[in-house]
Amino acid sequence: MAIITLTTDFGTKDHSVGAVKGRILSEMPAVTIVDISHNISPFNILEAAYILKNAYHQFPAGTIHIIGVDSEPSPENKSLIVALNGHYFIGGDNGIISLIAENNSPDNIAEFNVPNLVRNSFPVLNNFCVVACHLARGGKLEVVGKPITKLKDVKDFEPRITNNGNSISGNIIYIDAYGNVVTNISKTLFEAYRNGREFEIIARREKLKKIYNSYNEFIDFDLSTNQRKGDGDFIALFNTTGMIELAIYKSNLQGAGSAATLIGLKYQDLITINFL
Amino acid sequence: MAIITLTTDFGTKDHSVGAVKGRILSEMPAVTIVDISHNISPFNILEAAYILKNAYHQFPAGTIHIIGVDSEPSPENKSLIVALNGHYFIGGDNGIISLIAENNSPDNIAEFNVPNLVRNSFPVLNNFCVVACHLARGGKLEVVGKPITKLKDVKDFEPRITNNGNSISGNIIYIDAYGNVVTNISKTLFEAYRNGREFEIIARREKLKKIYNSYNEFIDFDLSTNQRKGDGDFIALFNTTGMIELAIYKSNLQGAGSAATLIGLKYQDLITINFL
Amino acid sequence: MAIITLTTDFGTKDHSVGAVKGRILSEMPAVTIVDISHNISPFNILEAAYILKNAYHQFPAGTIHIIGVDSEPSPENKSLIVALNGHYFIGGDNGIISLIAENNSPDNIAEFNVPNLVRNSFPVLNNFCVVACHLARGGKLEVVGKPITKLKDVKDFEPRITNNGNSISGNIIYIDAYGNVVTNISKTLFEAYRNGREFEIIARREKLKKIYNSYNEFIDFDLSTNQRKGDGDFIALFNTTGMIELAIYKSNLQGAGSAATLIGLKYQDLITINFL
Repeated sequence: MAIITLTTDFGTKDHSVGAVKGRILSEMPAVTIVDISHNISPFNILEAAYILKNAYHQFPAGTIHIIGVDSEPSPENKSLIVALNGHYFIGGDNGIISLIAENNSPDNIAEFNVPNLVRNSFPVLNNFCVVACHLARGGKLEVVGKPITKLKDVKDFEPRITNNGNSISGNIIYIDAYGNVVTNISKTLFEAYRNGREFEIIARREKLKKIYNSYNEFIDFDLSTNQRKGDGDFIALFNTTGMIELAIYKSNLQGAGSAATLIGLKYQDLITINFL
Repeated sequence: MAIITLTTDFGTKDHSVGAVKGRILSEMPAVTIVDISHNISPFNILEAAYILKNAYHQFPAGTIHIIGVDSEPSPENKSLIVALNGHYFIGGDNGIISLIAENNSPDNIAEFNVPNLVRNSFPVLNNFCVVACHLARGGKLEVVGKPITKLKDVKDFEPRITNNGNSISGNIIYIDAYGNVVTNISKTLFEAYRNGREFEIIARREKLKKIYNSYNEFIDFDLSTNQRKGDGDFIALFNTTGMIELAIYKSNLQGAGSAATLIGLKYQDLITINFL
Repeated sequence: MAIITLTTDFGTKDHSVGAVKGRILSEMPAVTIVDISHNISPFNILEAAYILKNAYHQFPAGTIHIIGVDSEPSPENKSLIVALNGHYFIGGDNGIISLIAENNSPDNIAEFNVPNLVRNSFPVLNNFCVVACHLARGGKLEVVGKPITKLKDVKDFEPRITNNGNSISGNIIYIDAYGNVVTNISKTLFEAYRNGREFEIIARREKLKKIYNSYNEFIDFDLSTNQRKGDGDFIALFNTTGMIELAIYKSNLQGAGSAATLIGLKYQDLITINFL
């Protein structure tokens, strides 16, 4: 059964998500619809890209991903179909798909070429669903899209190598449900410059000298030492998106607090790693 | 595969929605369950009606819509099955289905007539699911319902024509995820009284003299003019529910603000259109 | 079609839930995935147990329930597969499954015994999904689990019988979407000690002398009396989870207020019942 995913800033209260699902099921009863997220901050293309980039590759090849963020077509925001890494992405040419692709070249980039395109403020409902169902039925991309050569190029913050290769300066690119902060410094980049050296990660007034591979790796489970660290400690780890993340161990936004609230880290804040 | 939708004020944290889906799947494994919304404000029948009215007709004919808002049966709130426009609605006789029907006469109105009705505080789980699955299996409405003649009549705010047909006074009936405000003045009503005249829309201290058909229609994409309007401007448009909506272009509740926060517009506030 | 449910503290904004669903559908396209809740408070095992306990038994026997709360494996938190009442539970040995089981003995308790277990911070994605899909395909538990003898024993607050059987002291164990508060005093316990006596329920400064079986049972629908009680009154009822609940009739967190906000009742607060 074909799979269509939805990533939007529609929220889950309004009629929008329900209407879209109804339209898809009317077009094509035998389809699996999966919500990636409907809580993207309004018009936030960086957030939409971050979330979908870290979810889409878990789906089977051939999955169709509808992106309902900043999707209203305009001369500067054409509606696109992009084939990338075996998946289809349908959304505006606003940079989201470009950010998801990163350095990978799409296999195919096409702008919508559909008769009877509806021009109103709900293109996801009126146009994206039609194109998604065409692809979900195994229809050819060429029937609904006209090839174009490139995506609008948008860049997120990128880490800088400074101090003659002795420092990496990065930024916080996402704050997750636990208030943990994700940086744009990847494990790959970190290891490429580390060369076995000691290091310190500087986040506001805090310094961290170790990066764990999981939250619990931080804990000394040998109770005999009686020096057990635990809830509330501030740690760095390589998270499962491949990036360096700063976290409060078992953070709780409603209780003890999180990396965001306790350390005062905000979106886009500077994080520096100095190799010693 | 039969489709059952859910529109409730249960929220998405509690066990309620999960329990209802489990019950439906126990009764009938091969059914598609779709969430319209579980974030209706508690007991808010106007909001429930607005959201479901704008979503249900996108679903295929025969879809069964369970309404879990103010659904506990009482002498004044009978549990109903209503056939309307090819869809089934199951909910209390509290005005929601009446508001959805508007001026359309239902094809069939029946109150529950099921042996072993459970009398407790969770009728959606115990009774609505059973009736919904009966219909989803193709069972006849007559087997589970006893015909009654009319729905409880509830009216939402309605726009008034004033000033000898030179003004329309309406109200804000919904504030959406972006903080845009939806009025109860439809494009149809507006055009019926406009007769080609200029007009002004008055919303608190703001005046608008144009209504767009999409958000981007407002933007002058001819960059040579160097007078580009954009993010943060206050505009009116005919939205895709057929109503006049007042919006901040690319509003962001977490950033610049929205029509609700910037202009100070609240639910039920008066919106006046004067034809000039 | 096999059913896999998800109960997590991942929230619905991040990529986590989408990634998990993608992984499951990649392993096994013909499966029904149902969200129980993704809004468990972070690391709150009592809340997770309360919500899943009240939802799981509505699903058909054989359903597989993935629990993504405090799930990272450690020497103190083994990843488990538990067969209980005809259902499978997959989660950490952190007390959640123990709390769900209460006094029921699981049919089978096994710790993960899978080659290539991934050790990182997202075991639900990397390990739980694999085990769940094995079971969903009808695979034997013994192939992926090694039997162990018991679950970690965790107890929630339990009601105490005091005053020579003339009082029951309980606690608030959950506050629901309406702000109604659920106590840990069951109808069964209450009736076992009541012996037909009058009683008073004491919740901070409020006293209640009656327990209803539904919200509307409280209302006198005989309008002729002109003494109609209604919205805003404070009542006690036996709710559909079998517990005594204290509620504001038609409470509205955004309007009149709820039992939690109006009466000032908080999680864990003492509730006393005195038999008179």
